Amino acid sequence: MAEDSSSKIEDLGKGILDDVSSGKDPKFVTLARTRSNIRYDSKEGYLRLGKAKEERSFMNVAQSKRFMQTIAIASKCHRFVKEGLHTTIRGLFYQLKFSLGEDIEENIFSEQAESNPLIEDLEVSLDIKREDLNLNANRKGVLAGNMRIIDTFGNEDIKIDCAKQGRSGWAIPSDVDNDIEFVDIKAKYVLVVEKDALWQRLNEDLFWKKENAILITPQGQAARGTRRLIRKLSDMGLPVYVFTDSDAWGWYIYWTIKTGSINLAYMGENVATPSARFIGVTMSDLDRYDFLRKLTMNASEVDIKRAQEMMGYEWIKQHKEWVIELERMLKEKKKLEQDALQGPRLTFVDDYIREKIAKKEFLP
Amino acid sequence: MAEDSSSKIEDLGKGILDDVSSGKDPKFVTLARTRSNIRYDSKEGYLRLGKAKEERSFMNVAQSKRFMQTIAIASKCHRFVKEGLHTTIRGLFYQLKFSLGEDIEENIFSEQAESNPLIEDLEVSLDIKREDLNLNANRKGVLAGNMRIIDTFGNEDIKIDCAKQGRSGWAIPSDVDNDIEFVDIKAKYVLVVEKDALWQRLNEDLFWKKENAILITPQGQAARGTRRLIRKLSDMGLPVYVFTDSDAWGWYIYWTIKTGSINLAYMGENVATPSARFIGVTMSDLDRYDFLRKLTMNASEVDIKRAQEMMGYEWIKQHKEWVIELERMLKEKKKLEQDALQGPRLTFVDDYIREKIAKKEFLP
Repeated sequence: MAEDSSSKIEDLGKGILDDVSSGKDPKFVTLARTRSNIRYDSKEGYLRLGKAKEERSFMNVAQSKRFMQTIAIASKCHRFVKEGLHTTIRGLFYQLKFSLGEDIEENIFSEQAESNPLIEDLEVSLDIKREDLNLNANRKGVLAGNMRIIDTFGNEDIKIDCAKQGRSGWAIPSDVDNDIEFVDIKAKYVLVVEKDALWQRLNEDLFWKKENAILITPQGQAARGTRRLIRKLSDMGLPVYVFTDSDAWGWYIYWTIKTGSINLAYMGENVATPSARFIGVTMSDLDRYDFLRKLTMNASEVDIKRAQEMMGYEWIKQHKEWVIELERMLKEKKKLEQDALQGPRLTFVDDYIREKIAKKEFLP
Repeated sequence: MAEDSSSKIEDLGKGILDDVSSGKDPKFVTLARTRSNIRYDSKEGYLRLGKAKEERSFMNVAQSKRFMQTIAIASKCHRFVKEGLHTTIRGLFYQLKFSLGEDIEENIFSEQAESNPLIEDLEVSLDIKREDLNLNANRKGVLAGNMRIIDTFGNEDIKIDCAKQGRSGWAIPSDVDNDIEFVDIKAKYVLVVEKDALWQRLNEDLFWKKENAILITPQGQAARGTRRLIRKLSDMGLPVYVFTDSDAWGWYIYWTIKTGSINLAYMGENVATPSARFIGVTMSDLDRYDFLRKLTMNASEVDIKRAQEMMGYEWIKQHKEWVIELERMLKEKKKLEQDALQGPRLTFVDDYIREKIAKKEFLP
């Protein structure tokens, strides 16, 4: 893929050179990432960009600065890929400031906010991810389970057994596509647990071993690398079950894993897992387990506002089970944390998940 | 240590029972964690509690609720230790709500904010850490280097080679004292890098291998487990060098690692690393490397306010190098990020650190 992105950047450069030498105005074309060009693909089940295009031309005074900046970014990334070295958008920003800041009258990159959207332009235009341009994003997320990793790192094939990572688990990196392989996957399903604390609880009980699952925590909202890995595991045929709090933040985490997010709609196809199912906790758990009633909390204004908004989303309205869930939450004005399942005993959470999966009691 | 904490809780219980059976008012004594009882131990070089005590008595109407709550917490933790299962203070909170909420007229634990200080009371009173009570804190932080870990987990001794963790590194857990050993430590020093992005940069260059270092990132402010691990490595005779941004947040991260923090003053002895040295980035780096001048940013009001405050701290005033550094920052009103060292080339940061360590150019 690094090869791939390198030649894609070269093609971009050649096209511009050809334009210049034949006297044409060089242009750079990308898909618009404006809200109006983001839509829900109900057939595929994720958020994606529409077909609206944006063109940036060198000879247009209003566009020439952005045009030049985009080319500067492409050039830097091309070198990172050739050198086989990685950095972040912050590292890229400083390289741009370093090499362009003094030669050009105006400092063309004064704020990282200026360079970020241009990197997204490049990702969309070249149809690659920033990780393929050797730009790492923030990483977050941990995994344990019956699978192994071959991480080609420092000219070595490093083998990591995700069943032998003890209390820590394997830290999910930003890039799970290049020079890394996921092999010997023997698990039956993937369980994604919102909170690291609950992941640790389940890990200590060797839940993943007993149930033959791959146990992942995104440690809150899922980072790009974790979303991408969940999708890859799903593509390998594993069912994905997501376990979060029953509140605005938990639902957001679930729907981001499932359908992608507005911010990452431009790479929806790669990071969304439309087949994901929601395991809980749910408002109907209050009927199932009496004791949970006294362990609820009052829903906050944010929770209530968010539930109302969600009921308006096309991708949620389609699922009546979710509408019932949200309506009940709005009526009771209560929320429930996944941690509450530790109330009666620490290992109760294991049984809760086991039963939901055995009975296939999921929300879509 | 789990054995130890278990018998300490039993002693506490026995003492109370003895008081009751001999007709005395049961008491619980702990050190005051109020601001006025926190002081800097200039001989040892860390923040610690003074000698002021707080007593909680069952027969005092104003104290009996807290007394009872503390005993309830001790009892729960005793069971966790006996069962050999871990949870978090959130899990503990729900167990308390579950088992005490309905039997007692008033819900004695309605907010976690009520139970947290009582756990700290218990830590101080019994002279143990919450991790010894099987309560995990938030974890954050990653490590790579020439050392191995023996993590006794799930009835197995899991061996983890920190030189074979690839792009991910080993995720530092909350508890680095119980059922875990750090062995075969062949490194010459510990390098603590504020940002995960820079850690990844250095890890990719195999900096830890080439320099024979242990490379740690706290991923921002250091969590309890990471602070404790740095201290343990320091106790094994390794010098500790800390590399952060030159701004309010970076300094705070450094000083927290070195002298501990006000919040954790009650366990200062275990988590502070007074011998830690500050490697950069510093304002004087602007003289050393010309290019850095154009990669500075304007200091924020927070940075300036913080620098002024720091100059008043007893533990900083003692070090004239820090006073000079802070005065210069206040004069120039500029700050500098560690990421800026990637400006000329991605591997420049490696050379920067190497040179500073070779020349022993640290701030105390």
